[in-house]
Amino acid sequence: MNDPQSPPERGASSPAPGSRRPGGRTARTRAAVRDAVLTGLAEHGYPALTVEYVAEHSGVHKTTLYRRWGGVESMVADALALAGEDRWTAPDTGSLAGDLRALAREVADSFADPALAAAPTAFVAAAFQSPRAAESLHAFYAERFRRCACVVDRAVARGEAPAGTDAGAVVRAVSAPLFLRLFVTREPVDTRIADQAARTVLAAVEAGAFTSEDAGAPA
Amino acid sequence: MNDPQSPPERGASSPAPGSRRPGGRTARTRAAVRDAVLTGLAEHGYPALTVEYVAEHSGVHKTTLYRRWGGVESMVADALALAGEDRWTAPDTGSLAGDLRALAREVADSFADPALAAAPTAFVAAAFQSPRAAESLHAFYAERFRRCACVVDRAVARGEAPAGTDAGAVVRAVSAPLFLRLFVTREPVDTRIADQAARTVLAAVEAGAFTSEDAGAPA
Repeated sequence: MNDPQSPPERGASSPAPGSRRPGGRTARTRAAVRDAVLTGLAEHGYPALTVEYVAEHSGVHKTTLYRRWGGVESMVADALALAGEDRWTAPDTGSLAGDLRALAREVADSFADPALAAAPTAFVAAAFQSPRAAESLHAFYAERFRRCACVVDRAVARGEAPAGTDAGAVVRAVSAPLFLRLFVTREPVDTRIADQAARTVLAAVEAGAFTSEDAGAPA
Repeated sequence: MNDPQSPPERGASSPAPGSRRPGGRTARTRAAVRDAVLTGLAEHGYPALTVEYVAEHSGVHKTTLYRRWGGVESMVADALALAGEDRWTAPDTGSLAGDLRALAREVADSFADPALAAAPTAFVAAAFQSPRAAESLHAFYAERFRRCACVVDRAVARGEAPAGTDAGAVVRAVSAPLFLRLFVTREPVDTRIADQAARTVLAAVEAGAFTSEDAGAPA
């Protein structure tokens, strides 16, 4: 049934070079390059990432890398595109309180483990230096937050949130205090902080503060 | 009246090298180095910042730079310490709603102007590469948020916020969605987004979600 010559149409969120998949070999090459990029970013950072490094650590020849990706910017962008192609779905605990808490704890947990935190941290750092990485990071999180919208849709259906609640703003607000601490103020993040973020966003949702009223009131 | 030989005692927030000010010349040197560091960070980023660059752009001799700062990490840390020595105070509009909105708008406005945004963005980026820069950024924001606590104290006194409201969490929550967009998801920030952040945090404060209840409830 599955014809490897006819891969499913890809979404607009992964237009990166190297994303064509005529067969398993390209997919394996792409994954090997992704792994080498992640290792390089995590260990040395974007400024030190070179095609030579990726060639050495992926086992893919330099000429192949240059032909297919052009350079390290595209390799970083493609690694992010690949990261966004997973099957991650938002938590579904049965209540808005539970879902928001699970979302916040997932962020806190993933950055509490240095091994898990290295790659996403390296991507956030690379975006300061590479416009391509910044675009890919933008697309990655846009897709992640899109997948979270069901949390709010279900809450509205259950009567836990008012109709018109801005799902995108809600799911961003839950993770925002955690990312602020991780990447700006450089403060620790833990379950207590995650639960606080979830609790305060829940209260604001319940108060109707996330419904799309006109915000253009005079100061 | 002002004796330049007797500067006021400095707070614990500025332990950086070069922060002694025996006279105007040291202060001028420090400011010149700070300006060169900011220019270098904004134009080329931390990885490209060298003592040679700072010497050339500050007019301060390389040997002086090495003797007083040791290297670029300390220069970046000192530039941040100097940035934190300003007289910035939190807004005082007469209401919690107004103060939170003013705080959020200040963040949005300062990053809407590329000239204003360059230095703080460069500091946030440098913190990914330099542990010293990360420590200094932490200290800078800790002091900024400390200066914001009066916003919540006044709101409690006016009866706009419940006693026990966690001022630190409130002022972080107001700016968090803006910093998330600026430095992680790479989304635009504007007055509407700022006002939304302020409005949702206000609702959570009023609902008592920022009071320091035990957050250790089982999941």
